[in-house]
Amino acid sequence: MSSSSQPLIAIIAGVGPGTGAAVARKFSAAYPVVLMARNPDNYEDLVKEINGNGGKALGISTDVASSDSVKAAMEKVKGEFGEGVGCAAAIFNASGKFVRKPFLELTEDEFMAGYDVSGKGAFLFSRATLPLLLNSVDASKYPPSLIFTGATASFKGGAMMSSFSTGKFALRSLSQSLGREFGPKGVHVAHAVIDGVIDIPRTKEWMQGAGPDAKIRADAIAEAYWNLHVQHRSAFTNEIDIRPYVEKW
Amino acid sequence: MSSSSQPLIAIIAGVGPGTGAAVARKFSAAYPVVLMARNPDNYEDLVKEINGNGGKALGISTDVASSDSVKAAMEKVKGEFGEGVGCAAAIFNASGKFVRKPFLELTEDEFMAGYDVSGKGAFLFSRATLPLLLNSVDASKYPPSLIFTGATASFKGGAMMSSFSTGKFALRSLSQSLGREFGPKGVHVAHAVIDGVIDIPRTKEWMQGAGPDAKIRADAIAEAYWNLHVQHRSAFTNEIDIRPYVEKW
Amino acid sequence: MSSSSQPLIAIIAGVGPGTGAAVARKFSAAYPVVLMARNPDNYEDLVKEINGNGGKALGISTDVASSDSVKAAMEKVKGEFGEGVGCAAAIFNASGKFVRKPFLELTEDEFMAGYDVSGKGAFLFSRATLPLLLNSVDASKYPPSLIFTGATASFKGGAMMSSFSTGKFALRSLSQSLGREFGPKGVHVAHAVIDGVIDIPRTKEWMQGAGPDAKIRADAIAEAYWNLHVQHRSAFTNEIDIRPYVEKW
Amino acid sequence: MSSSSQPLIAIIAGVGPGTGAAVARKFSAAYPVVLMARNPDNYEDLVKEINGNGGKALGISTDVASSDSVKAAMEKVKGEFGEGVGCAAAIFNASGKFVRKPFLELTEDEFMAGYDVSGKGAFLFSRATLPLLLNSVDASKYPPSLIFTGATASFKGGAMMSSFSTGKFALRSLSQSLGREFGPKGVHVAHAVIDGVIDIPRTKEWMQGAGPDAKIRADAIAEAYWNLHVQHRSAFTNEIDIRPYVEKW
Repeated sequence: MSSSSQPLIAIIAGVGPGTGAAVARKFSAAYPVVLMARNPDNYEDLVKEINGNGGKALGISTDVASSDSVKAAMEKVKGEFGEGVGCAAAIFNASGKFVRKPFLELTEDEFMAGYDVSGKGAFLFSRATLPLLLNSVDASKYPPSLIFTGATASFKGGAMMSSFSTGKFALRSLSQSLGREFGPKGVHVAHAVIDGVIDIPRTKEWMQGAGPDAKIRADAIAEAYWNLHVQHRSAFTNEIDIRPYVEKW
Repeated sequence: MSSSSQPLIAIIAGVGPGTGAAVARKFSAAYPVVLMARNPDNYEDLVKEINGNGGKALGISTDVASSDSVKAAMEKVKGEFGEGVGCAAAIFNASGKFVRKPFLELTEDEFMAGYDVSGKGAFLFSRATLPLLLNSVDASKYPPSLIFTGATASFKGGAMMSSFSTGKFALRSLSQSLGREFGPKGVHVAHAVIDGVIDIPRTKEWMQGAGPDAKIRADAIAEAYWNLHVQHRSAFTNEIDIRPYVEKW
Repeated sequence: MSSSSQPLIAIIAGVGPGTGAAVARKFSAAYPVVLMARNPDNYEDLVKEINGNGGKALGISTDVASSDSVKAAMEKVKGEFGEGVGCAAAIFNASGKFVRKPFLELTEDEFMAGYDVSGKGAFLFSRATLPLLLNSVDASKYPPSLIFTGATASFKGGAMMSSFSTGKFALRSLSQSLGREFGPKGVHVAHAVIDGVIDIPRTKEWMQGAGPDAKIRADAIAEAYWNLHVQHRSAFTNEIDIRPYVEKW
Repeated sequence: MSSSSQPLIAIIAGVGPGTGAAVARKFSAAYPVVLMARNPDNYEDLVKEINGNGGKALGISTDVASSDSVKAAMEKVKGEFGEGVGCAAAIFNASGKFVRKPFLELTEDEFMAGYDVSGKGAFLFSRATLPLLLNSVDASKYPPSLIFTGATASFKGGAMMSSFSTGKFALRSLSQSLGREFGPKGVHVAHAVIDGVIDIPRTKEWMQGAGPDAKIRADAIAEAYWNLHVQHRSAFTNEIDIRPYVEKW
C-alpha cells in the first residue's frame, strides 16, 4: 500500500540528445528522474545539468536488452530512492542499432537488433517498472504512466526496413496489450508514433531547404508526453502521432 | 495580412451538455467563443455563464448541414467581431441523429442523417472557418487549429451502425485530407476518437456498477483538445484516441 | 423459401470499360448478369457480346444515387427474371465524378459528388439487392456475395482528395457494417481496395516507362472477385487489397 | 538463369493438422512439396498420403527458429531436388508456443517464444527461400509466392497476449517490408489474417452450439492461399483476412 509520503520518480530509458533528454528535463520539474542509457556519455552532462538546476537526476548505465543489466539498474534505483519507491512515469525511448540494407544481405544479428531493444528490451523495462507504477496508483497525483516511443515504422513496414519495423510493430503491440491489462488497474499506457526527423545535432545537415520547423523539436515531444501523463483516467489516450506540419504522410 | 492586434476567436459547432460545452468553457479562458447549435437551448445558459464569468461568448443557432445557415452564422460572427476577425481554433463537435436498427429497415433519410452532419456539415464548417484560420497563422500565439470529434465508429463499422459510422469514417477521412493540405500552410488539423460513453446527464443511469470514472469526463476531452491546440507546429498530432481506463477495446 | 430451381443472377452496378466489364464477363459464365450504368453506352456492346457468346445479359440505365432509378431498375430485373428471382452476387463498382482541386475551391455539389455515389448509392444498391441475396442463401451453390470496389482513398485521405475519399471511407465502413450484420445470415460481404491504375483505354498513355503490367489488369480484379464469391462460409474474407507488383505503397 | 525445365517445388513450414496440412495437400497437386515441422509426427502420415496419391512430398524435421536447422533443411531440399531447384511457393505457417497469462508472470523465455518463431523464424525462412523464389520468376507459371499466416493478434494486442501478438505484429511488418522489396522483382508476398478458430481435432470440443461452419475449414484457407498464389502480377494482394461468417469482429 502506497502512502502520500512515498517518493515518486520518473524513469527514462534511452536517453540521448533528442527525445530522451527533452523528456528527462520536462519530467525533472516534477519528479526525481532516473536516466538510463548504455553509454554514460549520453546522460552525464544532463545529469549534471538537472542536478545543478535544483532537480534530481541519477544516471545508470543500462542495456535494456539484458535482463541482468535491467535488474542491476533497478537495484540501484531502490538503493538510491528506497525499497518502497514508486514510479509516476516510465518512458521507454530506446531503439536498437539499425541497418537499412537489402533483406538478403541482413545477418541474423542485424535483423534481431531491432527486436532486441524494441521487443525484448521493452518487455524487460515494462516488467521492471510496472510493479513500481502499480504501487503508485494511489499516491500519484496523475495516473502512473508507461509511455513508449514509436516511429513511422510502427505501422508501415518499408522496403529494407524489416529489422527496425518488426521491432517497432512489436512495441506497438506491446503497448496495446499492456494498456488493456493495466489500464483497468489505473496505469496509463501510451504509444507515441514519432513520424518525422527529430531536430538534434546529428540531423543538423538534413532537410536543408525544407524551411523552419521541418524537423520535430524534441521539447515538443516531451510536452506531448507530459500531456499524456497528466490525462485524467476517464480519458486515457493510447496512441498519438507526432509529425511536423510540412511532413508528407 | 493579419496583425497582432487582430481579434482571434474560437468557434465551436455542436454545443451540447458534454464535449461542446466543456470545450467552450476551456477555450473561453483564452478567446472569445462562438457557440453553434441548432437549438438555442443547447447554448443559452452557457453563453450567460461564460459572459458572467468575465469571458465572452456568442451563441448562434446554426444548422451545420445547411449551407445557408452556416453562411448566415459566419455573417453574424463578422458582424460581432469585425470583417477581419481571425480564428485561433475551430472545433467541429456536431453529430447527426442516429438510429440503430436493422439495415433493411433504414429509410434513405435515416441513412443520410449521419453523413448530412459528419460529411456535409463538416465540409461546410471547414469551408467557412478555414479562411479565418489561415489568416490567423501569423497572429495566433498557437497554430490555428481545426479539430474534429470522432467516435469508435470512426474506425469500426458495427452491425446496424452504418448511418452513424459512414459519416464518422467520412469525417476522419476529411481530417486527413485537410491535415495534408493545410498543415503545410500552418493550420493544425486534428481528429479525436472518443471511444467511450461521456458523462453527461443523459448517460447518468448508464453503466451503473462500472465503478468511478468509467464514463469520460467532458472536461478531460476539452483538456486534450486544448493540448492539441497548443502543440508546436513541428510536432502536430493528427489523431488521438480517448477512452476510460476501464474501457474494453 | 428459395428452391434449387430458383433463377439466380448477378447484378453489377458501375459497368464501364474496366473492372465492371471484366466482372460482368467473368460472372456471366456462371449466371445471367444485369449490368447497370447511367449511360447505356457503357454496357450496350458488352450486353451484345455476352448474349452473343451464349451467356445472358440485361443492361439497365440506372443512376445508383437515385432511389427512384434503383427501384425502377429492380422492377425491370423482376420483370425479366421473375418476382422470386434470387441474386448470387451483387457487385457495386460505381464511383462518382471526382474533381481534384484545392479544398476551398470545392463547391458543395462537387464535395457531395463522391458520397452521393459511394455513400448513398451504395446504400440504395445494398438495400435493393440484399433481399435477393438473402433469399438465395439456400439455393446458391456459393454464399451469395455483396462486393464493393474501394480504392487507395478508402484508407488514406489525401490532400485535395476529400470529395473522393470521404465517399470511399464511407463505403468501406458500410462494407464492415453489412458484413457484421449479414455475414451471420449467410451473405458474404467484401470490400476490395484497388490500389493502382487500372489498364483501360483512358489510362493507355499513363505510366509510360513503368514497365509491363504496371497497371492492373481488369480481368485480374474480376478473378479476385470471383474467388471472393466462391469462398466457403467458414472462411469469408472481408477485405483484400489489389495492386501491381511495382506499385509504391 | 532459370529454365522452363527447372524443377519447381513448394515449401511449407509449420505443418500440423490444420492449415499446414491442408496447404500441403492443395499445393501438392501442382508441385512437389517440402513439409517442415519440428516434430516428424506432424508430417509423416501426410508425406505418405501425398506420395501414395501420386504426388511427391518430402518431410524434413526443422526448427525454423534455428539458423543451423533451416540451413540443414535447405541442404536436404537441394540434395533431393538439385542445386538449381526453384521454388514456386513458400508458405510460413509456424507459430511459437504461447502462454496466456498475466504479463508480470511471463518469463523472458515465455515472452520471447512468440517472436522466436514469428520474428526470427520468419526471417530465417524468408532468407532461405527467397533466393529460390527469385530464381523461379521466369520459370514459374504463376508469380513465385511467399505467404505468411497471421492471426487476430496480428493487428490487435490483447491483454495477456503480448508474447503471441508481438511476434504476429512483427510478422505482419515483415510481410510488408518483403512485399515492397521483392514485389517489384516479381515475387508475390502476402499475409493472411486468420481471425477465428480452425476446425481441427484439438478444437473439436470448442464452440459447441455455435452452429455449423463456425470454425474455419483448413481446406478453405488452403484454397485462399492457392488463389493468392495464382494472382496475376498486375494485381497482387498483400493482405487478406479470413473468418467464419458467424465470427464477431
